[in-house]
Amino acid sequence: MAGKLYGVGLGPGDPELMTLRAHRLISGARVVVYPTLAGGESFARSIAAGSIAPDTREIVMDVPMSVERAPAQVAYDQGAADIAAALDGGEDVVCLCEGDPFFYGSFMYLFARLSRRYEVEVVPGVTSIAACAASAGRPLVARNERLTVLPGPLPEAELRARIEGAESVAIMKVGRHLAKIRAVIDDLGFTGQAVYVERASLAQEVVCPLAQAPAEAPYFSMILLTKGADPWL
Amino acid sequence: MAGKLYGVGLGPGDPELMTLRAHRLISGARVVVYPTLAGGESFARSIAAGSIAPDTREIVMDVPMSVERAPAQVAYDQGAADIAAALDGGEDVVCLCEGDPFFYGSFMYLFARLSRRYEVEVVPGVTSIAACAASAGRPLVARNERLTVLPGPLPEAELRARIEGAESVAIMKVGRHLAKIRAVIDDLGFTGQAVYVERASLAQEVVCPLAQAPAEAPYFSMILLTKGADPWL
Repeated sequence: MAGKLYGVGLGPGDPELMTLRAHRLISGARVVVYPTLAGGESFARSIAAGSIAPDTREIVMDVPMSVERAPAQVAYDQGAADIAAALDGGEDVVCLCEGDPFFYGSFMYLFARLSRRYEVEVVPGVTSIAACAASAGRPLVARNERLTVLPGPLPEAELRARIEGAESVAIMKVGRHLAKIRAVIDDLGFTGQAVYVERASLAQEVVCPLAQAPAEAPYFSMILLTKGADPWL
Repeated sequence: MAGKLYGVGLGPGDPELMTLRAHRLISGARVVVYPTLAGGESFARSIAAGSIAPDTREIVMDVPMSVERAPAQVAYDQGAADIAAALDGGEDVVCLCEGDPFFYGSFMYLFARLSRRYEVEVVPGVTSIAACAASAGRPLVARNERLTVLPGPLPEAELRARIEGAESVAIMKVGRHLAKIRAVIDDLGFTGQAVYVERASLAQEVVCPLAQAPAEAPYFSMILLTKGADPWL
């Protein structure tokens, strides 16, 4: 009988923000799989490290850094083949996923390849948005408010149009797009309501008004924009 | 020295989807606080029940059911006063919050009242959106896709305009607005890509294509709409 694949959300970075279910599944796993980026450290593995038993087998998917899609897809093809071999051997496999597996997570590439052939369970995790709002002390949405989630790499004109028509906004993957995003928010007159957060929930966390954000932002950074003044009262 | 207030996200309903931190804080709490709706059971307390120690003091905020804002605000005023009394006595207080405290959560009303006077820490939780996507096997967003979160009570015309211009959409608080929302999605031709989820992660969970949704939906129900065909490949 084939094993089962678990896509397990690990939350934003603090290992204590893993769910009880994630901790239980990882602790009991005989095989785990996780991505590394261009041979670097795996952020997912670092979050889960304290839960992984010493004799667990680890399948590493090394994903090349590229704006092209094809090279990464080759890595996911290989990862899916390695996982399938373990599942065919009757072993369960736990895939370690930063944040939530289905919220900008690479697990969806494995899910697309394996979920028709094998039993797959997705364990949701705490998103970076929830962690950033908590760290910043900024409620995201109340009552009938709308939330818009935008990736920072979007073109300037599209960011402008989407932010203009939005209520609460979370801009993900800020990184090297920080200057462009700041210019748009400044121009729309919303800088006073914007907060910058990097590496939420980790020891190196930074939280500050957008106006005081550093010149360089890491990939794991976000801008939260809530337009109302105390809209939750 | 005054105590500290914790606003602790409990996730969507399955107690195993609490974070390790939530479990640790609740287990160690001498005082917890949670809302009930018009004298009913507390969903938040039911999620956390297995983590609450027997001798824990429980502060209950009974929130009246009303479309008016004022009566609920009176309940939060009273709750904030009760919490402040405990904090002034040097006790820490753990507030139990369904889902994530800052994502449509009533904790923000307590936060607005108490965070200027007391130390407050927010512990993020798994949102119902992440849980619904996991249960439905539907990735939410990949790469540079946008996610729009809309509350079901919005007027029909606004729902239509927001869904039309969106990529992935999560419609929250469906409940008695189901027929209105279905009509809009039908009219836009998106019914085939829409999934209905109620009570995600609980034993009574329902997941089905929107076309097969029941006639009556509970408050804790959601519609997920992802427009692309395999956009994550």
